Amino acid sequence: MDGSEQMSKRQLQALQTRENLLNAGRAVFLEKGFQKATMTQINKLAHTGYGTAYVYFKNKDDLFTELMETIMQKMYDVAGLPFHPRTKEEAYAQILKQTRLFMQSALEEKEMMKVVKEAIGVSAIVKEKWNSIRARFISGITKDIQFVQDAGLAIERFDAALIAKGWFYMNEQVMWDLVLGEIEEDLDAVSENLSELYAGGLYK
Amino acid sequence: MDGSEQMSKRQLQALQTRENLLNAGRAVFLEKGFQKATMTQINKLAHTGYGTAYVYFKNKDDLFTELMETIMQKMYDVAGLPFHPRTKEEAYAQILKQTRLFMQSALEEKEMMKVVKEAIGVSAIVKEKWNSIRARFISGITKDIQFVQDAGLAIERFDAALIAKGWFYMNEQVMWDLVLGEIEEDLDAVSENLSELYAGGLYK
Repeated sequence: MDGSEQMSKRQLQALQTRENLLNAGRAVFLEKGFQKATMTQINKLAHTGYGTAYVYFKNKDDLFTELMETIMQKMYDVAGLPFHPRTKEEAYAQILKQTRLFMQSALEEKEMMKVVKEAIGVSAIVKEKWNSIRARFISGITKDIQFVQDAGLAIERFDAALIAKGWFYMNEQVMWDLVLGEIEEDLDAVSENLSELYAGGLYK
Repeated sequence: MDGSEQMSKRQLQALQTRENLLNAGRAVFLEKGFQKATMTQINKLAHTGYGTAYVYFKNKDDLFTELMETIMQKMYDVAGLPFHPRTKEEAYAQILKQTRLFMQSALEEKEMMKVVKEAIGVSAIVKEKWNSIRARFISGITKDIQFVQDAGLAIERFDAALIAKGWFYMNEQVMWDLVLGEIEEDLDAVSENLSELYAGGLYK
């Protein structure tokens, strides 16, 4: 065994420990919620030595934002699907599909999303992370709008960045309502109504 | 002087004290923000006796929600304007006017709205109050949508309550962006873009 191989083993072990801590974090957050969860509990559940969690994460908020990235990945994937419709109908069909998948992904992680909602309200770090997640979605939507404007499908005088914000906010808040069980309508009705309003207003 | 007149004087004085406490509360919240404000500071500024604030308000959160009602009154007035358009164009003109007034009212109370935003994040009582404010707006919008659907101006298959939610959420979040200075566009551009998207999607 040479030096580089030993390094790699140590690195692998470090990655494993990190993964264990993230899994333990997820379990602790799900059980306790954000505010009541502690790094000590996470360390304990991960069977890592006292204080080990602090070697890998600055604090509880830092560990949590990493978990958020994993949860959001599915929603990013949905939002990042190629969007090059050739007709208004194609655009609507794809917008509907994306909206539905976005809401569905959030519902599949319902319990963690509830903790995310709680954490946004109490942690400045998590709030900032959420704002950066928002910015990423809005920037993607802005590009999609510009594409259909350039293609002559959408009304050109709209401010793409502003419409993207409005559209994302509508989706975000209805998504929170769905996650928190504060909306009666089902996923299909929600996705269809929002997508039709948006596509109907944006497209020629 | 008979007994009833004395009662009335005492009642008047109580109303005055209450008003003084609310004014003092506003000043303290504006200076300290929600979390750092205390009932003691409010009592002191209102020159009322030690603990008097607690005679009139259960706690800081309770006093604050009363201030919120006053701030929101102007926005309620805007939302409650009679809405009986006879054409799509009339509807758009009024939606634009209402949207603009809603945003403008929030901007006129910009500093207090910042405190409201902070308070929603940290106080369950304020959060609940905000949810009831939201519900009031959404219920008003739902009725407006039903009116134009019944009048044959808007697309009938839309779920009025759902569209009302989406539309309010869009306005609310953009309003927060404006209040927090997180949006570049001006009031006119914001109102026009959102209103056009909404009216374009909802109306035939």
